[in-house]
Amino acid sequence: MAKRIITISREFGSGGRFIGEEVAKKLGIAYYDKEMIGQIAEQAGLSSEYVRENAELSPKKGWFAYAFSGRDITGKSVEDMVYEAQRKVIMEIAEKENCVIIGRNADFILKDRKDVLNVFIHGSIPEKVRRICSLYNVTEVDAIKMINDIDKRRRTNYNFYTEQKWGMAENYTMSLNSSVLGYDLCQKIIIDCAKL
Amino acid sequence: MAKRIITISREFGSGGRFIGEEVAKKLGIAYYDKEMIGQIAEQAGLSSEYVRENAELSPKKGWFAYAFSGRDITGKSVEDMVYEAQRKVIMEIAEKENCVIIGRNADFILKDRKDVLNVFIHGSIPEKVRRICSLYNVTEVDAIKMINDIDKRRRTNYNFYTEQKWGMAENYTMSLNSSVLGYDLCQKIIIDCAKL
Repeated sequence: MAKRIITISREFGSGGRFIGEEVAKKLGIAYYDKEMIGQIAEQAGLSSEYVRENAELSPKKGWFAYAFSGRDITGKSVEDMVYEAQRKVIMEIAEKENCVIIGRNADFILKDRKDVLNVFIHGSIPEKVRRICSLYNVTEVDAIKMINDIDKRRRTNYNFYTEQKWGMAENYTMSLNSSVLGYDLCQKIIIDCAKL
Repeated sequence: MAKRIITISREFGSGGRFIGEEVAKKLGIAYYDKEMIGQIAEQAGLSSEYVRENAELSPKKGWFAYAFSGRDITGKSVEDMVYEAQRKVIMEIAEKENCVIIGRNADFILKDRKDVLNVFIHGSIPEKVRRICSLYNVTEVDAIKMINDIDKRRRTNYNFYTEQKWGMAENYTMSLNSSVLGYDLCQKIIIDCAKL
């Protein structure tokens, strides 16, 4: 069955977002990353700034923050409200049009659909560090800190809301090391598989 | 850099071995699975039967068996001897010729080489059960038991000897769900990437 929707989960610095953007262009389909933030904010009744900071990342304090703190009498935290809004927006987008969706646990949110190709892009540390230094103009030490911090927060968010393990091959239709394969080949493989 | 050696790790029932065999045929390179057993047995000074049963699987009793039991005064167990022999044989094979190697932690054993493409083949439960029922002429219940038992023993062996986690995308150059992508497309992707 042809895949109408492509979700891209990715390690920070692996070029997953860039690969997803190029795939969307080449297939002539919609691309959703920050594009969703306004819709999620409206759905949750929160500011776009808050959603931009929190929609995919756990609080810095980690898993405990999700599980036990900041919950109102219904047991819901602000993070839960953002997640619920995000889930609704992603399901509506998937219903509406062919697209590439970056991150935001979209692989799990859309797991009951048969027309979704779930991709995980990862990379080797030296290559990711090089990319981050050049994109964000930071030192190697800072790049490594950013990788550790952002991937930890993505992992915590994913593991909490999906009860799956972020980065396990079994969650995705395919996982690709962009540092070894290169961005062009990753794009080609994804496009070939989407046309299945 | 072109990849001379392809390692295929796989979930039981995912067709990984079949895919590896076809890739080797199509690329006209050597194929190693059970073909290695004689060499490993000779290297370890054990019978081929023992190696066939134990070279890739942990004992049924699990992780503890590796870590704490059956060790002689040097601290080595029979499993350690088999593993050491296997490691030596795999490194010699990789040095000698272009090939496909199935399982046996070859991805980890060869991790310092740049000419290796590491592939993990996984699949969806219903599809794996169908394959096992047809290949081994067993019931669905038995097929599920076989999947749980064999993958658990492969995981335990891998995690113990590599200090990595079996099935984590980051260990492999690529991971492919053969149930969604189909065996033919998996073969094509691997061959395209090997020719990189």
